[in-house]
Amino acid sequence: MHVMVIGAAGMIGRKLVERLAAAEGALGYEVSRLTLVDVIEPPIPAPIAGKSATLAIDLSSEGSAERLVSSRPDVIFHLAAIVSGEAEADFDKGYRVNLDGTRALFDAIRQGQRQRYFPRLIFASSIAVFGQPFPEKIGDEFFTTPLTSYGTQKAICELLLADYTRRGFFDGIGIRLPTICIRPGAPNKAASGFFSNILREPLVGKEAVLPVEENVRHWFASPRSAVGFFVHAARMDTAVIGPRRNLTMPGLSALVGEEIEALGRVAGPKAVSLIRREPDPVIRAIVAGWPTNFDARRARKLGFTAETNFDEIIRIHIEDELGGRI
Amino acid sequence: MHVMVIGAAGMIGRKLVERLAAAEGALGYEVSRLTLVDVIEPPIPAPIAGKSATLAIDLSSEGSAERLVSSRPDVIFHLAAIVSGEAEADFDKGYRVNLDGTRALFDAIRQGQRQRYFPRLIFASSIAVFGQPFPEKIGDEFFTTPLTSYGTQKAICELLLADYTRRGFFDGIGIRLPTICIRPGAPNKAASGFFSNILREPLVGKEAVLPVEENVRHWFASPRSAVGFFVHAARMDTAVIGPRRNLTMPGLSALVGEEIEALGRVAGPKAVSLIRREPDPVIRAIVAGWPTNFDARRARKLGFTAETNFDEIIRIHIEDELGGRI
Repeated sequence: MHVMVIGAAGMIGRKLVERLAAAEGALGYEVSRLTLVDVIEPPIPAPIAGKSATLAIDLSSEGSAERLVSSRPDVIFHLAAIVSGEAEADFDKGYRVNLDGTRALFDAIRQGQRQRYFPRLIFASSIAVFGQPFPEKIGDEFFTTPLTSYGTQKAICELLLADYTRRGFFDGIGIRLPTICIRPGAPNKAASGFFSNILREPLVGKEAVLPVEENVRHWFASPRSAVGFFVHAARMDTAVIGPRRNLTMPGLSALVGEEIEALGRVAGPKAVSLIRREPDPVIRAIVAGWPTNFDARRARKLGFTAETNFDEIIRIHIEDELGGRI
Repeated sequence: MHVMVIGAAGMIGRKLVERLAAAEGALGYEVSRLTLVDVIEPPIPAPIAGKSATLAIDLSSEGSAERLVSSRPDVIFHLAAIVSGEAEADFDKGYRVNLDGTRALFDAIRQGQRQRYFPRLIFASSIAVFGQPFPEKIGDEFFTTPLTSYGTQKAICELLLADYTRRGFFDGIGIRLPTICIRPGAPNKAASGFFSNILREPLVGKEAVLPVEENVRHWFASPRSAVGFFVHAARMDTAVIGPRRNLTMPGLSALVGEEIEALGRVAGPKAVSLIRREPDPVIRAIVAGWPTNFDARRARKLGFTAETNFDEIIRIHIEDELGGRI
């Protein structure tokens, strides 16, 4: 099987490729060829160097989608996107990459169909397709009324994915990711960064800033779970999904205070003392518009799983990023 | 105020233009200029001939949207679309006209913005944005999982309309129309045609075919109500709508049997006897996938109204199409 990862240089993309490299049968079938695509040259893990190729290409530029699809990958993971903040700041770029780039990919597959081509396509969507006000728990049938251009672009791609799948052009699944926590790497300026910063930094003895109150609730999954969602979507029997192809992934609904308590249990009070409270009304206002809790019944029933407490999320970070010890 | 109707040669478009022609202050302000647009030359009602212009143009062809917007209409009614059956039969044409044409219009308005341009835009959407299975009554927060390409295209345009409105590019409202009944004109081959045929034809002494059972339920509004939705959307204070700009219109949920009973009350048993039962499993299967009932609370609260029984729907047809008598 030829597997393609578009967005392979991103955080989840890299981890997905590492998983495929580490576990020969991760997808339930042999990966004979792996094509890693991103706007910058993505890294190739050593164990799979022999059967991997990289492509530095912008999906939204003329002819790119056709070029990617011409190699006829059997499984396509599409994780490439302009992030939320940038899509809001640059209207044209967001629509060009997140909507037109994805549609170009879908259309290239459709055109490729003339030679009996029917890949599985796993698309990274987001809980940003939802916009407030919300019920206490967002159910699987709640409507998508995004309040960002990024969320709008994701919601539109979900609709296209469902229609192209219904038409028989490809076998598509849309994966609505929770906020990924703990994000590895340096603190970034994304409004959601603090959810990870307040755990990741104290775990290595550094200070972190908490700009909101401890009673702020949000929806999380670990990077390991995110990779698991994609792998499961590539392995599963799609016949049981039916025509509603976009799935809110399971996750953990937790308070910032619960994050901090878990940090105390796993790493002790010294780690907790490294969290510095600096209330930021701008970030608080942004966060107030985000979903806090879901009843992700369909995805759970279809076999997708995530963490059930923050101790687990922190332990996974320690195992995967810190060599197992703090 | 300069008012533009795109899709002015269609059934609702023509009736909307007639309403604007008949009632000077229908929109609550003086219409100083009326531009009627369609792929074929739309008719101009006599009373407004002096201030009206027509344009035979395909919105989806290169440069058309810019040309329309360059005249800077203050209010734009966008009703132009490829119908459901054709959008399903011709994938490319449906997406080109229903999605790309609408997006081109939205983008032309956005570009026009540079000279402080902020029109109101009323978009004709459809209950085809919903796909089964449904709850008994579809509420205002039910998700859009269309099962046709037409419904997908409408749902995508709804998302664009909300985002462009949120961004301040125009003042948009999406109007999800019920099935229009009684459709005037000759019986057509649309799968939904019989809902109108079994009333319209017997009212003028002609036979009509009923291809489904009397216990089939569906969601209706008269052509007069449909025009009323558009007029109200053009007049209303949009500040009270908030960011959820797409509204399921009110309508009447009724059984085919209730249609027939109303026909008997209004036109007598002789009219009823002109309905010929010819069960058609293909049509029955298509109709079984359609929504049957909505709780259109938001739209009602915002002042949109529709009929509450089929006697009323039939009387409106007699008044508007048959000169008031049968």
